[in-house]
Amino acid sequence: MISREENDALTRTGPATLMGDLFRRYWLPALLASELEADGSPVRVKLLGESLICFKNTTNEIGLIDEFCAHRGVSLWFGRNEQGGLRCPYHGWKYDVSGQCVELPSEGAAGPMRARMKLKSYPCIELGGVVWTYMGPPQLKPEPPGVEWAHVAAERRFVSKRQQECNYLQAMEGGIDSSHVSFLHAAQLKRDPLFAGSKGNEYNLRDPMPEFDVVDFPGGLLIGARRNAEGGRFYWRITPWIMPAHTIIPPRAGHPLGAHVWVPIDDGNCWAWSINYHPQRPLSEKELDAMRCGKGIHVRYVPGTFIPLQNRRNDYLIDREAQKRGDTFSGVEGIAMQDASLQESMGAIQDRSREHLCPTDRGIVLARRKLMDAAKANREGKPIPALRAEEQRVRSCSIELPREQHFKEHARHGLFPAPDTDPVTV
Amino acid sequence: MISREENDALTRTGPATLMGDLFRRYWLPALLASELEADGSPVRVKLLGESLICFKNTTNEIGLIDEFCAHRGVSLWFGRNEQGGLRCPYHGWKYDVSGQCVELPSEGAAGPMRARMKLKSYPCIELGGVVWTYMGPPQLKPEPPGVEWAHVAAERRFVSKRQQECNYLQAMEGGIDSSHVSFLHAAQLKRDPLFAGSKGNEYNLRDPMPEFDVVDFPGGLLIGARRNAEGGRFYWRITPWIMPAHTIIPPRAGHPLGAHVWVPIDDGNCWAWSINYHPQRPLSEKELDAMRCGKGIHVRYVPGTFIPLQNRRNDYLIDREAQKRGDTFSGVEGIAMQDASLQESMGAIQDRSREHLCPTDRGIVLARRKLMDAAKANREGKPIPALRAEEQRVRSCSIELPREQHFKEHARHGLFPAPDTDPVTV
Amino acid sequence: MISREENDALTRTGPATLMGDLFRRYWLPALLASELEADGSPVRVKLLGESLICFKNTTNEIGLIDEFCAHRGVSLWFGRNEQGGLRCPYHGWKYDVSGQCVELPSEGAAGPMRARMKLKSYPCIELGGVVWTYMGPPQLKPEPPGVEWAHVAAERRFVSKRQQECNYLQAMEGGIDSSHVSFLHAAQLKRDPLFAGSKGNEYNLRDPMPEFDVVDFPGGLLIGARRNAEGGRFYWRITPWIMPAHTIIPPRAGHPLGAHVWVPIDDGNCWAWSINYHPQRPLSEKELDAMRCGKGIHVRYVPGTFIPLQNRRNDYLIDREAQKRGDTFSGVEGIAMQDASLQESMGAIQDRSREHLCPTDRGIVLARRKLMDAAKANREGKPIPALRAEEQRVRSCSIELPREQHFKEHARHGLFPAPDTDPVTV
Repeated sequence: MISREENDALTRTGPATLMGDLFRRYWLPALLASELEADGSPVRVKLLGESLICFKNTTNEIGLIDEFCAHRGVSLWFGRNEQGGLRCPYHGWKYDVSGQCVELPSEGAAGPMRARMKLKSYPCIELGGVVWTYMGPPQLKPEPPGVEWAHVAAERRFVSKRQQECNYLQAMEGGIDSSHVSFLHAAQLKRDPLFAGSKGNEYNLRDPMPEFDVVDFPGGLLIGARRNAEGGRFYWRITPWIMPAHTIIPPRAGHPLGAHVWVPIDDGNCWAWSINYHPQRPLSEKELDAMRCGKGIHVRYVPGTFIPLQNRRNDYLIDREAQKRGDTFSGVEGIAMQDASLQESMGAIQDRSREHLCPTDRGIVLARRKLMDAAKANREGKPIPALRAEEQRVRSCSIELPREQHFKEHARHGLFPAPDTDPVTV
Repeated sequence: MISREENDALTRTGPATLMGDLFRRYWLPALLASELEADGSPVRVKLLGESLICFKNTTNEIGLIDEFCAHRGVSLWFGRNEQGGLRCPYHGWKYDVSGQCVELPSEGAAGPMRARMKLKSYPCIELGGVVWTYMGPPQLKPEPPGVEWAHVAAERRFVSKRQQECNYLQAMEGGIDSSHVSFLHAAQLKRDPLFAGSKGNEYNLRDPMPEFDVVDFPGGLLIGARRNAEGGRFYWRITPWIMPAHTIIPPRAGHPLGAHVWVPIDDGNCWAWSINYHPQRPLSEKELDAMRCGKGIHVRYVPGTFIPLQNRRNDYLIDREAQKRGDTFSGVEGIAMQDASLQESMGAIQDRSREHLCPTDRGIVLARRKLMDAAKANREGKPIPALRAEEQRVRSCSIELPREQHFKEHARHGLFPAPDTDPVTV
Repeated sequence: MISREENDALTRTGPATLMGDLFRRYWLPALLASELEADGSPVRVKLLGESLICFKNTTNEIGLIDEFCAHRGVSLWFGRNEQGGLRCPYHGWKYDVSGQCVELPSEGAAGPMRARMKLKSYPCIELGGVVWTYMGPPQLKPEPPGVEWAHVAAERRFVSKRQQECNYLQAMEGGIDSSHVSFLHAAQLKRDPLFAGSKGNEYNLRDPMPEFDVVDFPGGLLIGARRNAEGGRFYWRITPWIMPAHTIIPPRAGHPLGAHVWVPIDDGNCWAWSINYHPQRPLSEKELDAMRCGKGIHVRYVPGTFIPLQNRRNDYLIDREAQKRGDTFSGVEGIAMQDASLQESMGAIQDRSREHLCPTDRGIVLARRKLMDAAKANREGKPIPALRAEEQRVRSCSIELPREQHFKEHARHGLFPAPDTDPVTV
């Protein structure tokens, strides 16, 4: 339980907010690289409450600029993406990827006004099938993201995004919280082609009382959930949380690793980025098919959008009979929408002054604290964690260990692996 | 005409409001009994601005509890209604019908937290095909409702509800106001199978200038509308209003009696409960068919909802030709939607600082005054009317009387009938 | 760029606002004459933020009165338009076209209340296929509108209206701004049957750097846009703006003249009235067909409404391929929706504190100034322009002139023509 003031501070990420300033210190996923093509249609992008337009110019440079033309405020979504820039269709003002006005036809080439017209713009890089942007002070721009999935070969990953109709924090807290797996996803784990067939599933289902152990690492937190395994050992699932908004899901047997990034659109909506990857092998056609069909952590969409087909307007197509039979625990089909439906049901922004956290929520408590501490440090000009790519290099793992061995030491090979090693997984 | 302040006071019923506190002293219809089944789907219920979940447990006890899980705020609408309680699908917390948490799996049976976790809950009773709830201070809970329709055998009544998209008060004032029958419903009365064929209809249509006489009774008001009848006599229609939100419609010839309860959902929406019943005989198949088809005071629905098929989004399917011809007076088909369409057209909450009441609105004026007086008395800890079942035992009637006989004395046998007597009706 | 305070002052037109008071000094188009018929259906009309009902009585008098019945606040949209007045369907109160209650059935003819019941009403006149209303102080009512199109024979004009989902000012500023034609409408001009084939189009397309010259005239402004023409001459397009909200589009060759009126519905919506007319000849069947099909400055509608078929909810049916090919400049089809789409994209009310105007926006700057000056003069009881019909008599024209001849003198015959003369057009 936190105060309303703390809740506000943690959940508001618009310009000049405490948490908004923190998020603006990191590279954030802005859109799928596949949404852009050279001189192709511009794309509306809303991030941290700012309305932006993204386009790729003739030479494949990416521009992420203010949505509205400097002249009379027309949305550049209607813009013509022409040779070297995006042209407002109203009076033909043209902008390059830096937001600089490069043509202002009514005054001609020699006019005095053009050079002064520059829209807000944010640098972008393409990495891991994603266009990332940095929305903070230019002099503080960090090195490109170091998360593992963004650096594997294209055939080893699958990246999707979906809009979630609630604040980023309650979505991310679901990603941090490993204890709900034994309930919400229990039935689905047995059937989903991207989860089924692992020993870990059995442990998850058998033991609904995990012990949580959360330890710091330079990029954030390692959240260990310990359950009873066979032979008197412990089964550990370790979910890294990388500041400010990455989570990595422990892999299951031979299945690909899973990862998420939770990016605020505005205070009542966020992007749930969902990534599967395998560091050592291409994803199989069967795996890719399942991902494209919305299995595992992915979803099917309302055509032409990134809004899930199951959404609040259709009660997520809840099936009470399936819930009754136990085919799904909540009646909602699919891992991703099981999470999203419940998180959206908390309201646009969860009222955390009414929650009652329990010991299994320790990861959530500590993540909030780290966010607040970092946000305050940032305001005071002090160093903040997870800016360097190296700090972001962590992998989730699931592992059986003797009771006396703590994951902190004995799962290091899985969490911070040597090059060219397979995921550590049960 | 009342002040904006009085209008606010009369129409706001959320927690801690003056009128909200008064409504919380009475049993209120919450949902149809048929919406629940043992271990069946939980149902969203919003009453007096509070979001609640209703479910029936394995042993047919009814729970009406806070919509949101105490843990992390997930809506229990997604809950699993399992053996003896409703389980949140996120982490498996389980609540009984009193809102008490009975399982908190992550801490196990011996944990310290479970016993402290108790959601807000309201007692429920099933009566007359309706689940009623009491949302006030436990020590002040009154005896169960005494309205006649709730106590007749099931085959003698038909109960429906529909959502009306305006404040409860303007809906209820329509139920109190007997003078609009000669206009709005005039054409319909002749055709509707649940109204047609009575002498009273003729009197209604012939005399658009009723004299109103309103007298107190222990449960509220008896609103008498007097019109000229044959043979130099008076035709009286007497509409009882039982505090805080019941109205009973005068019966017509052999047709069943009608009753309404107007229950605030929130300040801009209410439930219009509509009941037909006959105290002495089962409803006929023909009558039941008409009710199921939306005749009389009932409606047809948007499938899967309690929203009328005719609603503000389709202009109530108004038929200007039918209006022109006089088949309907307003162009809207059906008694219930004729009322609802006009009441919704006043706005979410009617601005009563702009109204101009006339003598036929005397019932409305007095009902407001009684509501305000009772609400203030309640705040001061003084007695309020209509808490006892006995006070609620009143029946509407329509009667022809000699000019010198007042309904107050001479319609008593119809209003407060001896056991096993038929309705008094013209 | 103007301050937020100035922007508010210019864009807010509700009761008692600065600009609202100015608009209330002029006759404004309220609805199409064809929307009314004697004793026909009443029509909802919202103007300057006021909710009104319009109806035509048995003797063809037009009433524009408060939407809500004086009695209990029911919308008179449900009213019965009967012999000599509009009757509220709730209790039968009846109003004449002046808003006077002429029947109050419950009190009978001799009652004391009826005479006192009078709804707000505004005088109406029918002119040019349009019902105009005057919403200001009765003693200040000006003579009927003098704009030319309202006075030509019916077969010489075509009038349509469409709802635009933004503030009137940004819509009107588009009508004043002649410089966007070379861009936004460039491709369309060549194809549209109501624009194609004129020499002026060629000049528009060839010269994207018009010089603007704006001069006062008694009714408002004459906004001249000068482009290079053949033979070393100048091509002038002169767009008159008549206070407070009329614009006239320069004609092209033999095509009819075009005109607009931009009328606030509320602060986030306006009516875009669109008129084609020829002062000297009937419109041809071919021209009328094109107008009815939404060519030129007209649109196609969502059936049963005045909302364009292309609207913000369907991204104006943007066609990126057509944009790429250059069939349309913005991807949106049609002159009217090319303008409306961009203007709506600025937001409900454009934030003019962020705009950057350039010399070609001189007409916009001066029109705002004249509106503000007049609004302030109005508040101080001083004279304001364009009240007299004579002041509104102006015609747009397009003309080639030798370089040394200014349009102010040398286009007078086109702008203020002698009777029975053709438009001056290139």
